[in-house]
Amino acid sequence: MTDSVTIALDVMGGDHGADSVLPAAVSQLKADPSLRLILVGDESLIRERLKALGPAPEDRMVVHHASEQIEMGEPPMQALRGKPDSSMRVGLNLLRDGEAQAFVSAGNTGALVALSHFVVRMLPGIDRPAIQSTVPALNGHTHVLDLGGNVDSRAEHLLQFAVMGSVLAQELDDNPSPRVGLLNVGEENIKGNRQVQAADILLRESKLNYIGYIEGDDIYCGEVDVVVCDGFVGNISLKTTEGVARMLTTSLKEEFKRNLYSRLAMILAAPILKGFRRLFDPRRYNGASLLGLRHVVIKSHGSADAFAFEQAIVRAQQEARRDLPMQIDQNIDTLLADRVEASVES
Amino acid sequence: MTDSVTIALDVMGGDHGADSVLPAAVSQLKADPSLRLILVGDESLIRERLKALGPAPEDRMVVHHASEQIEMGEPPMQALRGKPDSSMRVGLNLLRDGEAQAFVSAGNTGALVALSHFVVRMLPGIDRPAIQSTVPALNGHTHVLDLGGNVDSRAEHLLQFAVMGSVLAQELDDNPSPRVGLLNVGEENIKGNRQVQAADILLRESKLNYIGYIEGDDIYCGEVDVVVCDGFVGNISLKTTEGVARMLTTSLKEEFKRNLYSRLAMILAAPILKGFRRLFDPRRYNGASLLGLRHVVIKSHGSADAFAFEQAIVRAQQEARRDLPMQIDQNIDTLLADRVEASVES
Repeated sequence: MTDSVTIALDVMGGDHGADSVLPAAVSQLKADPSLRLILVGDESLIRERLKALGPAPEDRMVVHHASEQIEMGEPPMQALRGKPDSSMRVGLNLLRDGEAQAFVSAGNTGALVALSHFVVRMLPGIDRPAIQSTVPALNGHTHVLDLGGNVDSRAEHLLQFAVMGSVLAQELDDNPSPRVGLLNVGEENIKGNRQVQAADILLRESKLNYIGYIEGDDIYCGEVDVVVCDGFVGNISLKTTEGVARMLTTSLKEEFKRNLYSRLAMILAAPILKGFRRLFDPRRYNGASLLGLRHVVIKSHGSADAFAFEQAIVRAQQEARRDLPMQIDQNIDTLLADRVEASVES
Repeated sequence: MTDSVTIALDVMGGDHGADSVLPAAVSQLKADPSLRLILVGDESLIRERLKALGPAPEDRMVVHHASEQIEMGEPPMQALRGKPDSSMRVGLNLLRDGEAQAFVSAGNTGALVALSHFVVRMLPGIDRPAIQSTVPALNGHTHVLDLGGNVDSRAEHLLQFAVMGSVLAQELDDNPSPRVGLLNVGEENIKGNRQVQAADILLRESKLNYIGYIEGDDIYCGEVDVVVCDGFVGNISLKTTEGVARMLTTSLKEEFKRNLYSRLAMILAAPILKGFRRLFDPRRYNGASLLGLRHVVIKSHGSADAFAFEQAIVRAQQEARRDLPMQIDQNIDTLLADRVEASVES
């Protein structure tokens, strides 16, 4: 049997809090016998809600009380200074102290980034957590980072994102040589902004499987495994994706409701449309990694339902099992060593 | 009868050159009796191709010979210095000299931006052309700029884009008070990069109907008329849109081809799917404006077919008829005057 993995969950975070987190926890405990969970939050609330959910593998589930909770709109600095007993903070403490090997929260992103940075700390040589998400692509998926953790990133940061994304793809996809692309504008002869041009030089010098510049549409074409960009650009690209997908699916639905004939066609096409929706169900891709920390921290979407939150737990479990932070640490070292050697030689 | 408008067309530009441009020209001349066209390019080739297209309104159509042509991958500096008789250059000369009121080209974007800048010149106070495109949105459309003309834009440039986009929406949509949004990242408390924060302050001081920060998904929600962003970000957002739309439509098609039942459903759903495709047909939105120039220059997509190129001619005609460059010039002046007053008062 596989060694067990213990994951701490922020039961109070996100739009639905315990209503999403607890059903996801129970369901995932049943699905994965090597999983142990620490449920962090208001103990009496958690116990009450658990009762309503029926029988659960109690022996692999611990409730850890936390008396406070960070609100979705709360400024990160306030969350950091004012709430020592928030579920997010207590969960991160458990992670730092080795009680858990991963932490999952659907709470306030800014607070999670700031608290993780402060409590869990960064790997040597990395300044701030990068937010990585996996998106569907033709024939598979693509790992994209950064998605908002860092804006105004320098070329060195983009290089770090590339290393971290590459290690993640190696570990999670068993892909020995992930193709890394640098997001840039595509017009011939318009060569992109300064940071991207400088990062391109660093990436060419690196030992990564760097395939060069890619454009926004390449994210979804299935021909690149890791897409590297500044957090400002990545966040806007990801949100654009959500907006386009919502507009297209809304309009498709409206077209099918236009008249009696189209409504009939919709009934007949329902199984196909359902398969299509499942393929791109954003819930399946829930669970963004905060990379560059000393331990595994996963950010679930704030609006995640139980199914979506379960995917974030699965992602946490995969990263913890592979000890992704250690893998990143080792690879960043190798890369930096290469660069030091190169500069000594030159 | 409306006053006539004369538009010069680059017959040699784009992937299909005369094969797209000439059918579009003839069709649009027939559709719009007040339109006059100057067809710029290899005269013997143009006359030969026109013959094959059958009868055309010859009296409103002039062929203007140009012996050279700019290739799609050619560096802009080479296009600028080495080819004084290219169809693009000659067309822009006609525009500068008042022979035409607009110029449309499907050629090399970098060369068109550089040559327009050099030949047609910028309006006072504007540094470089901004590329503006109109995209479909729920219940209408949204005007987005810049899409790649300027990278590393300063806050002042973003303000200029906002004024130009707002004037464009006023003129083309008869919208007296277009809602202007500034593209930013959306996480609470992560306030965006430096240029955006500085531009936000300038926009709040302006007389525009500025609605504040918007996120990537808002481009398509129908609740903003003009989206302002740096060209790097805008280009990536637009290309992301293309990539997502392509992935979704490809996958929908594949789902419908999966088995006998789904193929049957596809036949029945065909009229609905066709209506859906027409709604978001990118060809309908072809024709990006190069704003900030003294005259109307429209960039058609390089891969445009005749139908798509015709939409670019329509856009050129609309902008020329309203004298959009003059409208922009007047509004930029007003805005700058306000700011000078404000700084004098403070």
